[in-house]
Amino acid sequence: MTRQTAWAKRSGLIGELAAEYLGTLVLILFGCGVVAQVVTGGILAGGSLGNHDSIAWAWGLGVTMGVYVAARLSGAHINPAVTLSLAMFKGFPYAKVLPYWVAQTAGAFTAALLVRWNYTEVLAAADPGHTLKTQGVFSTLPGNGTLPVSEWGALRDQIIGTAALMLLILAVTDLLNTPPGANLGPFIIGLIVVVIGMALGSDAGYAINPARDFGPRLAQYLTGYDSAWRDQYGNLYWWVPIVGPLIGGPIGAALYRFFIGRFLPVPGMQEIGRTPDVS
Amino acid sequence: MTRQTAWAKRSGLIGELAAEYLGTLVLILFGCGVVAQVVTGGILAGGSLGNHDSIAWAWGLGVTMGVYVAARLSGAHINPAVTLSLAMFKGFPYAKVLPYWVAQTAGAFTAALLVRWNYTEVLAAADPGHTLKTQGVFSTLPGNGTLPVSEWGALRDQIIGTAALMLLILAVTDLLNTPPGANLGPFIIGLIVVVIGMALGSDAGYAINPARDFGPRLAQYLTGYDSAWRDQYGNLYWWVPIVGPLIGGPIGAALYRFFIGRFLPVPGMQEIGRTPDVS
Amino acid sequence: MTRQTAWAKRSGLIGELAAEYLGTLVLILFGCGVVAQVVTGGILAGGSLGNHDSIAWAWGLGVTMGVYVAARLSGAHINPAVTLSLAMFKGFPYAKVLPYWVAQTAGAFTAALLVRWNYTEVLAAADPGHTLKTQGVFSTLPGNGTLPVSEWGALRDQIIGTAALMLLILAVTDLLNTPPGANLGPFIIGLIVVVIGMALGSDAGYAINPARDFGPRLAQYLTGYDSAWRDQYGNLYWWVPIVGPLIGGPIGAALYRFFIGRFLPVPGMQEIGRTPDVS
Amino acid sequence: MTRQTAWAKRSGLIGELAAEYLGTLVLILFGCGVVAQVVTGGILAGGSLGNHDSIAWAWGLGVTMGVYVAARLSGAHINPAVTLSLAMFKGFPYAKVLPYWVAQTAGAFTAALLVRWNYTEVLAAADPGHTLKTQGVFSTLPGNGTLPVSEWGALRDQIIGTAALMLLILAVTDLLNTPPGANLGPFIIGLIVVVIGMALGSDAGYAINPARDFGPRLAQYLTGYDSAWRDQYGNLYWWVPIVGPLIGGPIGAALYRFFIGRFLPVPGMQEIGRTPDVS
Repeated sequence: MTRQTAWAKRSGLIGELAAEYLGTLVLILFGCGVVAQVVTGGILAGGSLGNHDSIAWAWGLGVTMGVYVAARLSGAHINPAVTLSLAMFKGFPYAKVLPYWVAQTAGAFTAALLVRWNYTEVLAAADPGHTLKTQGVFSTLPGNGTLPVSEWGALRDQIIGTAALMLLILAVTDLLNTPPGANLGPFIIGLIVVVIGMALGSDAGYAINPARDFGPRLAQYLTGYDSAWRDQYGNLYWWVPIVGPLIGGPIGAALYRFFIGRFLPVPGMQEIGRTPDVS
Repeated sequence: MTRQTAWAKRSGLIGELAAEYLGTLVLILFGCGVVAQVVTGGILAGGSLGNHDSIAWAWGLGVTMGVYVAARLSGAHINPAVTLSLAMFKGFPYAKVLPYWVAQTAGAFTAALLVRWNYTEVLAAADPGHTLKTQGVFSTLPGNGTLPVSEWGALRDQIIGTAALMLLILAVTDLLNTPPGANLGPFIIGLIVVVIGMALGSDAGYAINPARDFGPRLAQYLTGYDSAWRDQYGNLYWWVPIVGPLIGGPIGAALYRFFIGRFLPVPGMQEIGRTPDVS
Repeated sequence: MTRQTAWAKRSGLIGELAAEYLGTLVLILFGCGVVAQVVTGGILAGGSLGNHDSIAWAWGLGVTMGVYVAARLSGAHINPAVTLSLAMFKGFPYAKVLPYWVAQTAGAFTAALLVRWNYTEVLAAADPGHTLKTQGVFSTLPGNGTLPVSEWGALRDQIIGTAALMLLILAVTDLLNTPPGANLGPFIIGLIVVVIGMALGSDAGYAINPARDFGPRLAQYLTGYDSAWRDQYGNLYWWVPIVGPLIGGPIGAALYRFFIGRFLPVPGMQEIGRTPDVS
Repeated sequence: MTRQTAWAKRSGLIGELAAEYLGTLVLILFGCGVVAQVVTGGILAGGSLGNHDSIAWAWGLGVTMGVYVAARLSGAHINPAVTLSLAMFKGFPYAKVLPYWVAQTAGAFTAALLVRWNYTEVLAAADPGHTLKTQGVFSTLPGNGTLPVSEWGALRDQIIGTAALMLLILAVTDLLNTPPGANLGPFIIGLIVVVIGMALGSDAGYAINPARDFGPRLAQYLTGYDSAWRDQYGNLYWWVPIVGPLIGGPIGAALYRFFIGRFLPVPGMQEIGRTPDVS
């Protein structure tokens, strides 16, 4: 995820941004798609179109696919918190941070419009007023809109969840550690998001990615969800899944460096020769 | 999936068609099989034989197995939309498109007959008249027969879903991108279909494959499902999961080329030397 | 799975049989274990300890683990139908067939006793009389004891299911085809059993392995299940999951050879040099 | 998991302990997290945040991630029973056993405090008195608090389950056997825990790891769970998931050596040359 390959340099920033755009689009197409399917299926079809496990798996597999799409050209951050953390801890150029953020958010926005379009009829049938009932299809809510979690609780959760994500991304992509080989890093990175969704999904719907939340939130606001910027308590909430991940990501990277990274030796020649090509 | 290996050339078209036939047969044996198990188990056994997640996983794993069966001889398209897209964007010979389509559809038809035969007793018990109640075991319906989706909505969904499929197949098989190694491409390709089933399965049951839908639809019509060519509204529907995928596949391939493919460099010698053997 | 390595030859038949014994034991420990957990949890704990998907995954992962245990020493058949098919189609020595069958059945028998012992209290609480209610924990029944499937239907299903199993085992272990590399064959082979459980599990509980069914059936008969040899109709049933798989396995192997194997070229030197070490 | 690499030696004991601490922390963050999510979601949100399958998958994936974090520096035991077994059967230095145990337990304790903190509001809403109702979020109970299993039954189960775990860890990490390659050992090891959770989770909640149980139990006792040391019968129970695994682990290692290990030949030069780098 973090290495700037010779190819990426040659293709230039436009190729990198195209990759971030399409990779995040793929992630959100499946991510918002599965929530749309499960939530509307719960209302209209007795829950027969999936459940929370589907949501956890499809978000994770969406990450896997988004990373496979973008890895060669951009390193496949597809998450502004990852981009920021790599800039702070892995030498990713700060000048590229903002362009990456824009591309990621644009990809997420486009994908959310696609999901909004493709689920037009079923969303209209399940929730004619486009209310809080299906707001969570596109953007997150404290306690998923039902559990009694405050804004602070959701912020805390987003910091913890994104710290876990970033710590593990570094653990499975650091060539000095034991990363998966055979270009299967994207599969394992998807599994990180699967397990976060299963274990850290109660307090705030595990956005752990500012683009994942803001892009679709904007898209849903523009297409009829008037309450999009607020939570079930009527508070402005949209900043929580932006600020939380941007704090949590660097914390996770710092923890990885403190507990693992600083103990790993600088590679010698034999090390360079044997390193697998992980994305 | 797309490379014509020396072996394939040597074995000739008959071997390729045998592989497409058997690979698609394996896919549909598991695909229609899991829907038969879940639908009849829902009616006869209180849902204790699986749910929508089983359907998503088994279709995906069916793809994995079908691709492992056919990859070496034919490239394992096992889907007419894939064959068409590869002809348009990857130089697959147009002269082989029609023979591949016939072999794929024949494999799907044979597998559907096998499932029809093996589930004779339970289908008869669950739905003695062989009606819309179990029609979805073999062929797709708008909104899976229950959600309020129109023919147009289903067509739109099939275009989007097959575009996602084709875009990702190219992303994970393009040797200039970051494809999975160790011959695990068929596993990852199966996961593409798992996530499509979880996230894009509401509007039209994710046929995303004309052979998958037409072969079993013909088989069920010949074995007692008189309503097979129509949907729950009484409209002729069988053309939607044929036309939609044939439009969507090339769109997905074009998107991959526009956003990713054209930025990938032509490989040099060192590139050729390190390419993994993905199917 | 099919190659007789130099190591296996050197360690001798006793090591091979030890591996078949332990590999099958591991398979059945997880296989009968998950059914015990799900069935008793359904009766005593409102279904909160798993469902049919757990059963499909755990049987498949049990196969994965059994194959990892035994692959190096014996080739990890862990199934008499596989052993027979390899003897008929892959040159496995006929003289070893019976010893392998005995080792496999002994392993399954031992594992079933372990499960019977470990679930003593919950089986007694869920089904004090040790009746048909929990008989399916150890051995299979037509229609899983509830669907209206006849003995003939179950036999047909066992032939089809085991043919699919054997066809796919050959497809993913044939070095001339496209087998998974990096010693991940056992993982993919486990997925074959996952998808069979999801798609071909209604008619007869997918024994697809005579040792898997007979060993535990004997164990349960000896520990209080008086009805073990009969199905819910009172018919002797134990022969079906023995005879069906022994017919289906060779059929699947023949289909693989007819549609795929005969089109694969004899390997040349370059082929031998690049073959991955699959189990 | 068992090899002491040159890197590990160079980084010294402090790096090994940091890795064991962080690896176990990651495991328990996801492990206790998923139980918190499922149990409180069951009480407050109609079970819409996961089920037993989520628990089995997330514990397994937690192991995968913990092993990826720690493998290079410490070998990623992240389980006192594994450390003891490796000391008894694989030459792991006895002098390091106690430091590893302390680091593992400290990691589990820290993670449980994190989960306790992050789930403060929902635990308070679901179980205001912090009683047996949610005690199982952090520590195990005989029969998961509901099935009629005695202390003896739970101890027996913990011995069997940990023996299975240790036997399989050795099977998939022994370079003389057929271990997974491409650094995917941590993924397969996670699957071992998935299948144990599905098949051996009824009697005692599959602690199979003294640190996993004792660390969180201490954390919950210090944060309001007064009944933490006792089971639903009022008996002191905390010792069972410590003693059981410490007995079972070495038994599993002995079984592996007896049935498999002793038949594997000493590697020759060609064997050393081809061994994959498994963690």
